[in-house]
Amino acid sequence: MTKTLDDIDTPAVLIDVDKVERNLQRAQDHADKEGFKLRPHIKTHKLPYWAKRQLALGAVGITVQKLGEAEVFADAGITDLFMPYNIVGPLKLKRLKALNARVTLSVTADSPDTVSGYAASFSADQPLTVLVECDTGGGRCGVQTPAQALALARQIIAAPGLRFGGLMTYAAPGGFDGANSWMTGALQLFNEAGIAVPRVTGGNTPEIWAKGGGPLTERRPGTYIYNDRYQVKVGAATLDDCALTVMATVVSRPTATRFVIDAGSKALTSDLLGMEGYGLIAGTDLVVKALSEEHGVVEMPAASDWPRVGTRLRIVPNHCCPVTNLFDEVNFIKGETVVDTLAVAARGKVA
Amino acid sequence: MTKTLDDIDTPAVLIDVDKVERNLQRAQDHADKEGFKLRPHIKTHKLPYWAKRQLALGAVGITVQKLGEAEVFADAGITDLFMPYNIVGPLKLKRLKALNARVTLSVTADSPDTVSGYAASFSADQPLTVLVECDTGGGRCGVQTPAQALALARQIIAAPGLRFGGLMTYAAPGGFDGANSWMTGALQLFNEAGIAVPRVTGGNTPEIWAKGGGPLTERRPGTYIYNDRYQVKVGAATLDDCALTVMATVVSRPTATRFVIDAGSKALTSDLLGMEGYGLIAGTDLVVKALSEEHGVVEMPAASDWPRVGTRLRIVPNHCCPVTNLFDEVNFIKGETVVDTLAVAARGKVA
Repeated sequence: MTKTLDDIDTPAVLIDVDKVERNLQRAQDHADKEGFKLRPHIKTHKLPYWAKRQLALGAVGITVQKLGEAEVFADAGITDLFMPYNIVGPLKLKRLKALNARVTLSVTADSPDTVSGYAASFSADQPLTVLVECDTGGGRCGVQTPAQALALARQIIAAPGLRFGGLMTYAAPGGFDGANSWMTGALQLFNEAGIAVPRVTGGNTPEIWAKGGGPLTERRPGTYIYNDRYQVKVGAATLDDCALTVMATVVSRPTATRFVIDAGSKALTSDLLGMEGYGLIAGTDLVVKALSEEHGVVEMPAASDWPRVGTRLRIVPNHCCPVTNLFDEVNFIKGETVVDTLAVAARGKVA
Repeated sequence: MTKTLDDIDTPAVLIDVDKVERNLQRAQDHADKEGFKLRPHIKTHKLPYWAKRQLALGAVGITVQKLGEAEVFADAGITDLFMPYNIVGPLKLKRLKALNARVTLSVTADSPDTVSGYAASFSADQPLTVLVECDTGGGRCGVQTPAQALALARQIIAAPGLRFGGLMTYAAPGGFDGANSWMTGALQLFNEAGIAVPRVTGGNTPEIWAKGGGPLTERRPGTYIYNDRYQVKVGAATLDDCALTVMATVVSRPTATRFVIDAGSKALTSDLLGMEGYGLIAGTDLVVKALSEEHGVVEMPAASDWPRVGTRLRIVPNHCCPVTNLFDEVNFIKGETVVDTLAVAARGKVA
């Protein structure tokens, strides 16, 4: 018997599989045309199913952020994983070593302390590939200057158990030009020092659509697979490209202008990303104005009988990645038909 | 062998069990002294273990927000559950009926549509207890006037399968006086109509400490068990009462004033609740200034060698309830000893 949306309780995550396929294909076509490699970040979907599709379409590997995610995807048969994170402490280094023994793995470092930890844990028979993380303006992790990047690369090269894998950055949205010029300067310095840089890898979805070549050989977008309200805001997608929606039910009509849905911060997160409201009601201009854990409050500009209690609506969330982290499962849909329901394999893998 | 904090990977949730016991006892003593009943909201801990402690100390039952939570706690042997939510739609009404057959259950309604749904699903042999939800200023769900509450109570009373259970509100923080006067007016109206109001139940942790009696016979605090930075801000707890912390590791020292921890929005949530920063670094005045999913960025007022990469810190989150929803398990601690690790039984039960 065909399963439809009526058979699913709310709140629920719906994934429009045709939109996903379109989003994946468009990004891969763009990468091929512009001449960079795609290494998608799985944080958005957390599903080996989609990672395999991304690889089949031409991705060179996947990006994961935490060891727990890497372990899930390695278990699912993914063989080339990049973890752009400083892996620190004896518990994680032990897990990292076990992982490095079974897949093609690369990680990052941005300090001598992190490199020392790697150097003490790995040996030449199964070396670890380490890229240097560079803060090109994002203000998060990363060495601050190309000279620091070079010094750290030398420390990596000097360790028998490590291989220098290149340079990595996560540019702030809108910081693509800054990242390019930073990396161009760094590459010149490495060239003068006679040190080859195998890979220069940059992040995020808005960035992949920025034109102009530049020094980045690889990009790690995540959100492009589903897209969300933020990607629409910054021009990286249209609303029609948003493949993930949260289906919710109207549970209350306290006033003629207010309605309340059964999706709150436990379904939509409280991420604002500089926008007004916590999500867009699909097919309208209305936003979720206020949230508590299990309620989303919407105010309409004028009195309206619509929507009645029991009405089902779909919300385009501000940020789809943390939404998939809140749900045990997601529903793949084509129109009103639920074609599959998948457990979110890497949900909650924070460590 | 004794398990210590060193045996736990980060980020991790730590629960100081002695502080929990102190918090529970203080609230129950206060309720007993002030003469109201305590029906704790389990959304904060999501653990049958603590629900049973709360009941043993004198709570009259528990509060849950979603059917999925109710089912978990009923399975764990809790027998008196209040779900202050409009349960809407055929899938949920079917589950509600099954639940009502095995525990003492009460729910709320704030519209004729919700009451009609209940009335059509329940019969006199196993009636459902329904309270009327009142918007006493919180601006979320609830009837807007005592007259509307009375009309809805009459609809409940007229249905053979329903029992009128009383009045419920969730006051906005600081709205306790408004809730009191609203309920006093409503009780007068119900009294004139000759309709008994078995229970008047109010919400939230700051409210339980408000003095002055008033019409509320029962309160449903949740956060008081663990407390958090918001409760400290509003004066409902001290920092020393905060039993839940997130243990994190410093993974990066990009500059002399900046450090980055391995706890981001996937560990701390992005709840701000009107405060600056996403959590307090315990034992300092520093806050987590910026978050991405797996990174928390802290800026120090002056250059400092502390903390080095690898240093473990504890964060007092802004809002502890959604934090427990992000972790598969929590660690009970006494000092540096981990006395137990429990799966968060009702984590992710959004529907």
